[in-house]
Amino acid sequence: MNDDVVYLDNAATSYPKPYKVYEEIQKYLMYYCANPGRGGHKMAIYAGNAIYEARKDIAGFFNINNPLRLCFTKNATEALNIVIKGILKPGDHVITTSMEHNSVLRPLKYVEKCLGVEVTIVWGNNFGEIDADSIRRSIKKNTVLIAASLSSNVNGTILPIEEIGSISRENGLMFLLDSAQEAGSINIDVVKMNVDFLAFSGHKGLLGPPGTGGLYVRDGINLKPLLHGGTGSNSKSSEQPELMPDLLESGTINLPGVVGLATGIRFIRNIGIENIAYYKQLLLKRFYESIKDIKGIKIYSLTDNSKNSGILAINFSGFDSSEIASILDTQYGIATRGGFHCAPLAHETLGTEKQGLVRFSIGCFNTIEEIDYAANALKAISGKLVQ
Amino acid sequence: MNDDVVYLDNAATSYPKPYKVYEEIQKYLMYYCANPGRGGHKMAIYAGNAIYEARKDIAGFFNINNPLRLCFTKNATEALNIVIKGILKPGDHVITTSMEHNSVLRPLKYVEKCLGVEVTIVWGNNFGEIDADSIRRSIKKNTVLIAASLSSNVNGTILPIEEIGSISRENGLMFLLDSAQEAGSINIDVVKMNVDFLAFSGHKGLLGPPGTGGLYVRDGINLKPLLHGGTGSNSKSSEQPELMPDLLESGTINLPGVVGLATGIRFIRNIGIENIAYYKQLLLKRFYESIKDIKGIKIYSLTDNSKNSGILAINFSGFDSSEIASILDTQYGIATRGGFHCAPLAHETLGTEKQGLVRFSIGCFNTIEEIDYAANALKAISGKLVQ
Repeated sequence: MNDDVVYLDNAATSYPKPYKVYEEIQKYLMYYCANPGRGGHKMAIYAGNAIYEARKDIAGFFNINNPLRLCFTKNATEALNIVIKGILKPGDHVITTSMEHNSVLRPLKYVEKCLGVEVTIVWGNNFGEIDADSIRRSIKKNTVLIAASLSSNVNGTILPIEEIGSISRENGLMFLLDSAQEAGSINIDVVKMNVDFLAFSGHKGLLGPPGTGGLYVRDGINLKPLLHGGTGSNSKSSEQPELMPDLLESGTINLPGVVGLATGIRFIRNIGIENIAYYKQLLLKRFYESIKDIKGIKIYSLTDNSKNSGILAINFSGFDSSEIASILDTQYGIATRGGFHCAPLAHETLGTEKQGLVRFSIGCFNTIEEIDYAANALKAISGKLVQ
Repeated sequence: MNDDVVYLDNAATSYPKPYKVYEEIQKYLMYYCANPGRGGHKMAIYAGNAIYEARKDIAGFFNINNPLRLCFTKNATEALNIVIKGILKPGDHVITTSMEHNSVLRPLKYVEKCLGVEVTIVWGNNFGEIDADSIRRSIKKNTVLIAASLSSNVNGTILPIEEIGSISRENGLMFLLDSAQEAGSINIDVVKMNVDFLAFSGHKGLLGPPGTGGLYVRDGINLKPLLHGGTGSNSKSSEQPELMPDLLESGTINLPGVVGLATGIRFIRNIGIENIAYYKQLLLKRFYESIKDIKGIKIYSLTDNSKNSGILAINFSGFDSSEIASILDTQYGIATRGGFHCAPLAHETLGTEKQGLVRFSIGCFNTIEEIDYAANALKAISGKLVQ
C-alpha cells in the first residue's frame, strides 16, 4: 500500500518506520520471545537483557540518569493517566494549557469532577502560543502540578517548555511534560528542562511500533500505581513492589514493541535529532511557501523554525475540513487528517471548533517530491472549489 | 536460538507462534500501520477494518454476541484491574480462590486495603482443586463478585468454571473469569459459563504477541474506566465517551499486536481447540508416565484429562527448584521456570511456599521427542542428585 500513498499523517502515527525497526521486532518475535523477568533460562535472560538495554538507551536519549526511573507503558495516554491519577489529591490545583490533547484533558476533567482537584487552563493566542508568564501568574497556594505538551498535535505550535520547567522548579511544583507530539525531532533533556514526569508515545516521532510508550518519574517522587499485578519481582507477596520500574509495570511487558521502540530511538540518535529537525523544517518551509498564497487557504500553523514541530494545519474558506481531507485521499492519494483532532480546547483556541481543520503532519521519511505533490494538489483543489 | 532450546515455558508465554502470526504482524507494520479511528484516509480505514475484523473474530471465539463489548488491553493484568477497580465499592464483598495469580490477588489486596472491600479466599486442596460448594457457602449479603481463574498458572489445575458461573448467576452476583491460563486449549463460552467479565492474555495459549490482551464486559454492566484519554470518538468533548469499547480503549491501539492476536486465534479455530487440547493431553500423559517413578521426584499436578491445562509441576526431594531449572537450562537446553510463580497462595496451597517448584508447561508446538528428551533429562538429574 505504501507505494500508492503520500503519507502526511505522521502526527497520528509515523509511517514508515526505519527498516531496522521491522527487522528487530521480527527477530525478537521469532527467536527470543520469552517472558523477561519470568524465568531464569537462556531465552528469558536474553529477553530480559533486551529490555534492560532498551531502558538504558531510551533513558539516555532523554538524559535520564537512572534508567530504573523509566517504565514502559502501552501508550502515552497510560503514562499521563498514571501521573494525573497517581499524584493529585482533593484540593490540589493543576495548571494546564488550552493546547493539550484529550489524553491530558480527559484525565484532568476526571480528577476535577470526581476527586475535587482544581484545574486552571491557560489559553494560547490565535496560533496556540502559550505565554509562560500566564502560567506563572496562575500559580496559587495549592498548585502542585503543571501539565503541558511539548507541541500541539493540532497545529504543531511548540510550547515554551524550558521556561515552564524553570517556573515549575522555582515555585516548588511538579512538571509533567507530554511529549507525544513531538519527541524525536525536538531534543528533550529532563534535567535541563526541569521535567519531573515525562510521558512519551513510542509510535510517533520516536519511530517505534504502536503499543509502546513510557513514563519517566524523577527520583524521590512516589506515585500510586494504576495497575497492580504480577511483576516477576517479590513474587511471594500479594502486595505490589514499591521499587521502580516494577511499581508501574504490572503484567507481561511488550518485548518486541519495546525492542522496536529502542531501535527507532537508536536510529534517531544515529541520524542526529538536529538533522531530523532540520530536514523536517526544510520540508515545512517549502510546503508553507508553496501554499501560502493559494486562493481561499487559511493557515493555522506558525512557520518559524523554533515554533513548529512539523505540522501545517489549514482550511479552505468555509469548506468542511473532512471533505477536503477526503478529496486529498481519494483523488490524490494523500493521507492527512481532517475534522477534529482530540484536542477540543485547541480547536477553540484556533477558532476551528466548528470547521475542524486539515492537518498535514510531516515525518522524517517524507520527500521534497511528496511535499510539492501535496502543494500542487491543494492548488488544484483551490482552483476547483474556491471562486 | 529456537533450534537450541526445548521450550517448556509456555505458561510464561507461548513459543513459537504460528508462522502466519509473524507474517501478519510484519505485513501490518510495514504496509498498513496507520492509526485506526484517527483519520479517514485509506490506510487509516484499512487499519480500522483490521481492528474491526479482529474484534469480531475474537468475540466469536468466546461466543460473545456483541463484539463491541470486547475491548483490547495491553495484557490480562490491565483487564483484571479494570474490573476489580471499576466495579467494587467500599463494603462490597468478593470471593476468590487461593489459586489466583498476583494479577488478581494484588488488585484485590489493594481494594481491600484502600477501599474497604471485603475479600474471602476459598482454598484449594493439595492439588489446588477448588470445591465450587465452598464458593457457594462463602456468599454473603454484600457479595457482588466472584473472581476465579480458568486454570492455575502454577500447576495447571483447572477450576470448576461452569459450576462457579452457575452459582454466580443463581445468586445474582457477577463473575470475573481470568482466562490467562489457558484460553486457547480450553473452550470458553461466556454465555454457557455465565461469565460477566472475561479477561484474557494474548501472548499465552492464544498464540498472539506480547503487548496484547482483552476484556469482555457483559451487556448492561457499566464500569468506570481506569484510563481517560483520546479515543478518536467524541473528539470535541473533554469527557470520556460512555460507549464500549471506546470507554475502555484510551490512546492509540496496538494495531500489529491485535492483528497478530486475531491471527493466533484464527489458527486455533482452524486447527480446532479440541485437537490442540487432545494433543497437549497426550504429551502431558506421556510426560507424566515417563517421570512419575523417577527416584526423589514429587509431582504437584493432576493428570486427569479434564483437570490439567498442560502443566507438570515437580520438585526433587529437598532440592532448590531454581537450581533444578538452572541445570535443565544450562546442561540440557530445556527452558522451564523454577522458583515462585507470581501466585503466593497457590504455593501455600501446594505446600511449596519455601521450595517453589519446577514448572514444565506444554504448548501445542512441542513434540513427543521433546517430551521424551525432558523426561530423560530428569532421569539423569535424579541419578546424579538423589541417593
